[in-house]
Amino acid sequence: MGQVRNILFIMCDQLRWDYLSCNGHPHLDTPHIDGLAAKGVNFVNAFVQSPLCGPSRMSYLTGRYVHSHGATWNGVPLSVGQTNIGDFMRPHGLRCALVGKTHMEPDEEGMKRLGVDRMSALGVLTSECGLEPVERDDGLWPDKLVDPNYAYNEYLKSKGYDGDNPWHDWANAAEGPDGEILSGWYLNSNHLPARVKEEDSETPYMTGRAIEFMEEQGDAPFLLHLSYIKPHWPYIVPAPYHDMYGTDQVLPPVRAEAERDNAHPVLAAHMKHTESLNFSMDDVRANVMPAYMGLIKQIDDQMGRLFAWMEQAGRMDDTMIVFTSDHGDYLGDHWLGEKEMLHECSIRVPMIVYDPDPAADSTRGRRDETLVESLDMIPTFLDAFGGLVDKEHLLEGESLLPALRGRQDGALRDAVFAEIDYAFKPARVYAGREPAEARGYMIRTDRWKYLLWEGYRSQLFDLENDPDEFDDLGESADHADIRAELHERLFRWLRTRATRITISEEAVRNRTGGAPKQGIIIGEWSPEETIKGDPDPDYWVE
Amino acid sequence: MGQVRNILFIMCDQLRWDYLSCNGHPHLDTPHIDGLAAKGVNFVNAFVQSPLCGPSRMSYLTGRYVHSHGATWNGVPLSVGQTNIGDFMRPHGLRCALVGKTHMEPDEEGMKRLGVDRMSALGVLTSECGLEPVERDDGLWPDKLVDPNYAYNEYLKSKGYDGDNPWHDWANAAEGPDGEILSGWYLNSNHLPARVKEEDSETPYMTGRAIEFMEEQGDAPFLLHLSYIKPHWPYIVPAPYHDMYGTDQVLPPVRAEAERDNAHPVLAAHMKHTESLNFSMDDVRANVMPAYMGLIKQIDDQMGRLFAWMEQAGRMDDTMIVFTSDHGDYLGDHWLGEKEMLHECSIRVPMIVYDPDPAADSTRGRRDETLVESLDMIPTFLDAFGGLVDKEHLLEGESLLPALRGRQDGALRDAVFAEIDYAFKPARVYAGREPAEARGYMIRTDRWKYLLWEGYRSQLFDLENDPDEFDDLGESADHADIRAELHERLFRWLRTRATRITISEEAVRNRTGGAPKQGIIIGEWSPEETIKGDPDPDYWVE
Repeated sequence: MGQVRNILFIMCDQLRWDYLSCNGHPHLDTPHIDGLAAKGVNFVNAFVQSPLCGPSRMSYLTGRYVHSHGATWNGVPLSVGQTNIGDFMRPHGLRCALVGKTHMEPDEEGMKRLGVDRMSALGVLTSECGLEPVERDDGLWPDKLVDPNYAYNEYLKSKGYDGDNPWHDWANAAEGPDGEILSGWYLNSNHLPARVKEEDSETPYMTGRAIEFMEEQGDAPFLLHLSYIKPHWPYIVPAPYHDMYGTDQVLPPVRAEAERDNAHPVLAAHMKHTESLNFSMDDVRANVMPAYMGLIKQIDDQMGRLFAWMEQAGRMDDTMIVFTSDHGDYLGDHWLGEKEMLHECSIRVPMIVYDPDPAADSTRGRRDETLVESLDMIPTFLDAFGGLVDKEHLLEGESLLPALRGRQDGALRDAVFAEIDYAFKPARVYAGREPAEARGYMIRTDRWKYLLWEGYRSQLFDLENDPDEFDDLGESADHADIRAELHERLFRWLRTRATRITISEEAVRNRTGGAPKQGIIIGEWSPEETIKGDPDPDYWVE
Repeated sequence: MGQVRNILFIMCDQLRWDYLSCNGHPHLDTPHIDGLAAKGVNFVNAFVQSPLCGPSRMSYLTGRYVHSHGATWNGVPLSVGQTNIGDFMRPHGLRCALVGKTHMEPDEEGMKRLGVDRMSALGVLTSECGLEPVERDDGLWPDKLVDPNYAYNEYLKSKGYDGDNPWHDWANAAEGPDGEILSGWYLNSNHLPARVKEEDSETPYMTGRAIEFMEEQGDAPFLLHLSYIKPHWPYIVPAPYHDMYGTDQVLPPVRAEAERDNAHPVLAAHMKHTESLNFSMDDVRANVMPAYMGLIKQIDDQMGRLFAWMEQAGRMDDTMIVFTSDHGDYLGDHWLGEKEMLHECSIRVPMIVYDPDPAADSTRGRRDETLVESLDMIPTFLDAFGGLVDKEHLLEGESLLPALRGRQDGALRDAVFAEIDYAFKPARVYAGREPAEARGYMIRTDRWKYLLWEGYRSQLFDLENDPDEFDDLGESADHADIRAELHERLFRWLRTRATRITISEEAVRNRTGGAPKQGIIIGEWSPEETIKGDPDPDYWVE
């Protein structure tokens, strides 16, 4: 055990916070992830800034709220004006690299405007959130989108898997009784094993790539973002994981009739989506949920493989490890499929942080109820390298290092915030709204969740008395005061966003009242005889 | 008269909206500016987005609110992520150039991060809001800041004005009885003539530079930002303008005892500034105001010279002309000096727009009460070139072209917004606040002005019954409803800022529900037998 020299930032995709045994799942056994929690701190109240891959990941990778970074949906480029995890961490001597998914969309127009060659080293980093793409793989490769040089497909081909798109035909498809290919995109095939051999499927492949990277690094310091594609759909997993869980181990959906009967208009529109209609049927869930659980079980086994390798290589002694997800999954809860709305199952994520430093020994195995946001990652990493100084004009999160090292005084924060821009979804059209009007905002405290929907009534949930979020108090006369309070806090949060990104708070302090020292004399009568402000403006100059 | 081929965007600095004869000043005669108003439209309800040079100008030059562009104070760099007036207008074949002031601070860190060489053509444009700096001159050159190669100083030296800094010693200083130099920075010298000859002072010099530029352009289309430094301090003007107005023509300050006795804490802190204390004394005003008026009179005469040249060169037939200012000046009103707070005298500006197109004939000479914002400039220019298409993800203003051409249906907007970040001022320290907490927001409708001060009570003024803004209704029980309404509108305004800058609204529309067409199948049971959302997602694909 020793000082943090490396960072391994592991992200799953669409992994709900409660689908781990350490977070209380009664049937899913995840001993390796639980083992990391036993060595580190399990932050059980961790939230993403948006319940969708792209915007959530951009918050993780810039340290900023969605309102601040502007990449509000998948495929919305991250402006070249935004600083990224590489900009922050590379100056600390770390090779910053990616294996897996980011969902980053390059700002081609911004790069063109500023003359950044997309193919140069700078252009590549600018296009990848500052991470060297050892392997970039967003894990969604239908035939129409697949890159002919796609590395994982090349790997599969080298192993003898045939066809133009073995990602689809082998890793994400099952086989019918007559040998026909059954696409994993369709939920009716999800109970079957994927055609690929388990060791050649995406999760073990990415783990292998991460180990290769770390091997190659030797003792040279790194930040590796190991970003798994699963348990995101296509919900299909190879044997033996496909039938490791039975339908009797599928938890019933968390939903109430009243939610559908009296749905908020934005939710009602989302309930009309294909995935919501299908996931609201018990037969569909029975077919898919065991695969979702199997995909997680496979990740856990790969964590075992990864941590074992790190142990023998000495990397457990000098590597801070984060295990988290970009958002959750409705899976039929609340009559919804996919994510994108703001219930707990969608915005709450696992967040386990292991700090090898002996200073963290006192907190090992702790279950920490601190409200954590995804944008706390970069501040935590910077803090571990002693570099969390004067970044508050860019970074909107907080360092978790004090919590990890048992020296957090008081609460880190008293509320978390999330946003959704559903302009790109059919729901926006069902609801008859313009793209700029399809926004939702959340403030969530220990007890309350308040949701503001642009153009619609707000919602309120009492998480203490109604943890399942069935009882919308958005129009309850008894709750007008708490709604007003949370509404105002949301406004205040928006008013105080870090939009002044080009100058630090410290520089502001140093310049306050500094004009006279530059010879700029404002409003003085004469050099000899003048009234000056109280105290003298010169007082303010550093 | 003909189609718009060029744009001449004229800005004064610190010119109050009401210090023109066409806007009602009883003593100041500005026939040339009035003449432009007679040929164009005089927008008498025009407001800047911030009452300070830098942030206000960045709104003019990006078309975005301060919250959106982030350059909240003088010297705060404009992020390289922001698009500028040159980016918008150059594609229309215009040479986009600057003569005078912008107060733009380059984002050196952003350029370095993206490998933009500050000295390259791109680096220069990126540093100058996209304007080719034919002459950049911010007009504030105390000895400690002056650039040894400063062009205007070179000009003065070539004319025989001696010393290291003739800007100060001649153009911005008077002479005492024994020939001693009396700095124009000090208000006690402001009744005296500047030492420089009138034709060599800053305003005529800049006018000459603009004419030279247009001469050089010949018939090649241009956008010229001609940006005067005056009537901004140092408040000193050469003969004959220094004593063209007498103290009997100085309007009394607009202030009430009660404003000082019961001042809002943020205003109370600003009243302690040197300039406020001094401008609150009648003797000081009596000494300075004639110079302020003389500086405006000189600008008006230079407008006469400029427009006469344009007339003979044919430029009045093909050039859209805007005459405006970056903010106003308290000049002792409300017990304040300088600008920076949100009273009318500070945030309301002259806004005269001349459109040579015959389509605008029906509105010539019109006094238009439409609520106009500074960020309407770029949309208006784009519209004049037929290019106002799908920019709403970047530009937050509206085109004034329909109003100019008599085809504006209904009100352009029903409120204007402004912001101030007073973190850099001693007032922030008097008030004991952190840099991130020193923010004020304004919403102003035809009748009401509501001011939200972070951490303090809000203010409300009824402009219909209290045009002087003496009676703060911020705590009036009778006005709780209107305060609540405006508070919520301010929140809504902030929620709907154009922060998603990398993708257009049109692109969002085109992509809405488009995943299935890319082969991404979400939540369907099987190819043959599936429940699809209503209507079918494919419906949404373009």
